[in-house]
Amino acid sequence: MSLTGKTIAVLGGTGAEGSGLAFRWAHAGLTVIIGSREAAKAQVAAAALNALLGRAAIEGVDNATAAARGDIIVLTVPYAAATTTALGVKEHLGGKIFLDVTVPLIPPKFDRVQLPDGRSAVEQLAEKLGPDVSVVAAFQNVGAHHLKDLAHTVDCDVLVCGDSREAREAAVALAEAAGLVGIHAGALANAAAAEAMTSVLIAINKAYKAKASGIRITGLPPRT
Amino acid sequence: MSLTGKTIAVLGGTGAEGSGLAFRWAHAGLTVIIGSREAAKAQVAAAALNALLGRAAIEGVDNATAAARGDIIVLTVPYAAATTTALGVKEHLGGKIFLDVTVPLIPPKFDRVQLPDGRSAVEQLAEKLGPDVSVVAAFQNVGAHHLKDLAHTVDCDVLVCGDSREAREAAVALAEAAGLVGIHAGALANAAAAEAMTSVLIAINKAYKAKASGIRITGLPPRT
Repeated sequence: MSLTGKTIAVLGGTGAEGSGLAFRWAHAGLTVIIGSREAAKAQVAAAALNALLGRAAIEGVDNATAAARGDIIVLTVPYAAATTTALGVKEHLGGKIFLDVTVPLIPPKFDRVQLPDGRSAVEQLAEKLGPDVSVVAAFQNVGAHHLKDLAHTVDCDVLVCGDSREAREAAVALAEAAGLVGIHAGALANAAAAEAMTSVLIAINKAYKAKASGIRITGLPPRT
Repeated sequence: MSLTGKTIAVLGGTGAEGSGLAFRWAHAGLTVIIGSREAAKAQVAAAALNALLGRAAIEGVDNATAAARGDIIVLTVPYAAATTTALGVKEHLGGKIFLDVTVPLIPPKFDRVQLPDGRSAVEQLAEKLGPDVSVVAAFQNVGAHHLKDLAHTVDCDVLVCGDSREAREAAVALAEAAGLVGIHAGALANAAAAEAMTSVLIAINKAYKAKASGIRITGLPPRT
């Protein structure tokens, strides 16, 4: 799927993961706006990203404005704020692609798999958003650490799960634009694996004193 | 953990995964017996493995005898038979390590994550076995395809999840003995990620026409 002419709206784009993805997408030439609860905070974060980019590429607005103007809406807020943020802009999501990056990490045991109600958090969110929104999950396992350092290879594949092929293809294209490899990983229900894997990676970081463990999928045809 | 002097009992050792692991462990010099519902079937499978090994290393017995004689009991039956098989030999498991290799794949949608009751199948099994059995989960993502071909590198890491450090270390040692890398991946609850990932790998195989996709954990200290 071509992302040309599309506006990518990153809700919670002032956080580490959201601003990192916004930076990489803007660097790749995509049209990116970041949203926050307060427009002023988003403007400050956008200014910092533009300084890093060396040009005024990214605009900062409040979440509702971002959702209204975006063609692809990306949710990167902490898990505790995910449902509220998404439902708060629901009126602007109809007919659009909604990319959920959030992970159900529940304090204090971040290193323990705790799927809410025993299935993927994104499935539950998708039900609340209704059938008119094409929900896809991706980037759950990608740490924010090195996203703003283009010289650093982020050694992690992006599992893309969704029930809409168009939405999955958009997420795979967004992974590529960020310098990563997006992999079609099946239905939205399969996001449970990616969500759970984040807790496993945190457990692995702890066990091996690593900072940013990740996953790679092996056994695929050669990547071009 | 040293496996020297321990007997590894593989329940369901006539299947592709169980016989593949039994073969690799026996090849590494470990003491291995395989169990089946019928002793005669286990004897036939053991004879085939011994022919491949070039020596009479593996013995075939019924599951109860295998469980009674084993120090580490490995469950490799299909998911539908997992609980019945494990509970059927429960009297022989007290104080031992029980390594669950099974994956909750529920027909007809093998490529869709379906965690029974919304959490890892192995946690539920562990509750039924009681606190006197040290349950650990591993090898969920390792396909059987190439286990009997020692020249073939199995390109997949082994996530090891369990609440007992001793049991996790035994599973990591068993992964190494099989020529694989075992990775401490946290509590038994985290096996949900490994169980779910198997459905994701099946979905990926389907999407990419691959035969044996797997996972590798990146970002760890160099492997020695």
